[in-house]
Amino acid sequence: MRRSRQDAAATRERILKSAAAEFRRNGIDGTGLADLMAAAGLTHGGFYKHFGSKEQIVAEACAEAANSLTNSLSAIAGRTKSKVSLEDVVGSYLSRAKRDSPADSCPLAMMGSELARQGAETRDAASGSFLKLTRLLVPLMPDAEPEVKARNAMVAMCAMIGALTVARIVPEESLSDAILSEMTRAISTGQMRGSGKPKLSAGKSTSR
Amino acid sequence: MRRSRQDAAATRERILKSAAAEFRRNGIDGTGLADLMAAAGLTHGGFYKHFGSKEQIVAEACAEAANSLTNSLSAIAGRTKSKVSLEDVVGSYLSRAKRDSPADSCPLAMMGSELARQGAETRDAASGSFLKLTRLLVPLMPDAEPEVKARNAMVAMCAMIGALTVARIVPEESLSDAILSEMTRAISTGQMRGSGKPKLSAGKSTSR
Repeated sequence: MRRSRQDAAATRERILKSAAAEFRRNGIDGTGLADLMAAAGLTHGGFYKHFGSKEQIVAEACAEAANSLTNSLSAIAGRTKSKVSLEDVVGSYLSRAKRDSPADSCPLAMMGSELARQGAETRDAASGSFLKLTRLLVPLMPDAEPEVKARNAMVAMCAMIGALTVARIVPEESLSDAILSEMTRAISTGQMRGSGKPKLSAGKSTSR
Repeated sequence: MRRSRQDAAATRERILKSAAAEFRRNGIDGTGLADLMAAAGLTHGGFYKHFGSKEQIVAEACAEAANSLTNSLSAIAGRTKSKVSLEDVVGSYLSRAKRDSPADSCPLAMMGSELARQGAETRDAASGSFLKLTRLLVPLMPDAEPEVKARNAMVAMCAMIGALTVARIVPEESLSDAILSEMTRAISTGQMRGSGKPKLSAGKSTSR
């Protein structure tokens, strides 16, 4: 009994990791349940033993992908304690390797426009992933008040997601490479930030 | 004969405008040919009288959407000649109206992750749309050498696409609003730029 529970948990984990890769590679609408079960080496029928719906696995796969990315970027951030680590982390996120290997890249850039059209569970998971990645940047941001650093990190994270998305769209390699390197430079030289002056509050943000 | 050619051109135009809205609203994979013909008030069967393939209409719809957006942003840019117009243009792109009306918004943000997975024709069209929007920003960028302005505009455009994408994903309205307003401020105060120092060249960008 215990063994079979362990097996089931291992199988669930295998499906989830495989789904996290497939959704980033082929999109949400472009990946059917049969596809992702096949990618995990399983038959379609077993899916509902582990997950309640496609929405559930999309939400969990998005979180899984973000955790995996955060861990790999955290390892880079931990390697250097100097100011240079912001460039290392941003440069790793905006690398040609991440652009060219969607299965191993940022879920918000690989699935961004599709995530925006999903239901509440998936959008909550994606939003949590965005905040998790943003929080990774906060301590790396140049000296400022904590609230300002948080805003600057949020702006930088959105800019990174946009640059990786566009670099994947653009077919001309030199332009695509330039997008990655220019955005890395803009963020790591600290020229890509919020103003740091106005308070970030609901009242302020709804005054537009 | 002449009349029927005019009718055919008008019908083609109607299908295209309708497709440009549908793809932004429901995504590329999420919009079948029957859906977009129905949205134009036509039957599925007539599609191939006007377009050769779904890929062709996706590419043309992306360009159509970008032209429409560029025209509306150009009109804003033309209204004011002062420095403030960068904020007006960016603020219009990153408005809650554009976030909440995908059919009328930026194709690169509404379909970004899906465009990256399309064939050559669509990716070329999308890349052209990106450059068209970027060129709109160039003359609005703060004083610098032309090449630096072009780079800064490219960085800003990517950042805008990312911010609009993330603002659509995030369900919590105050956070979503803050993303739009913080990015508008970061770009329009000129704090969101490339360094302006190194030359932008293929050699440089492939050295990463």
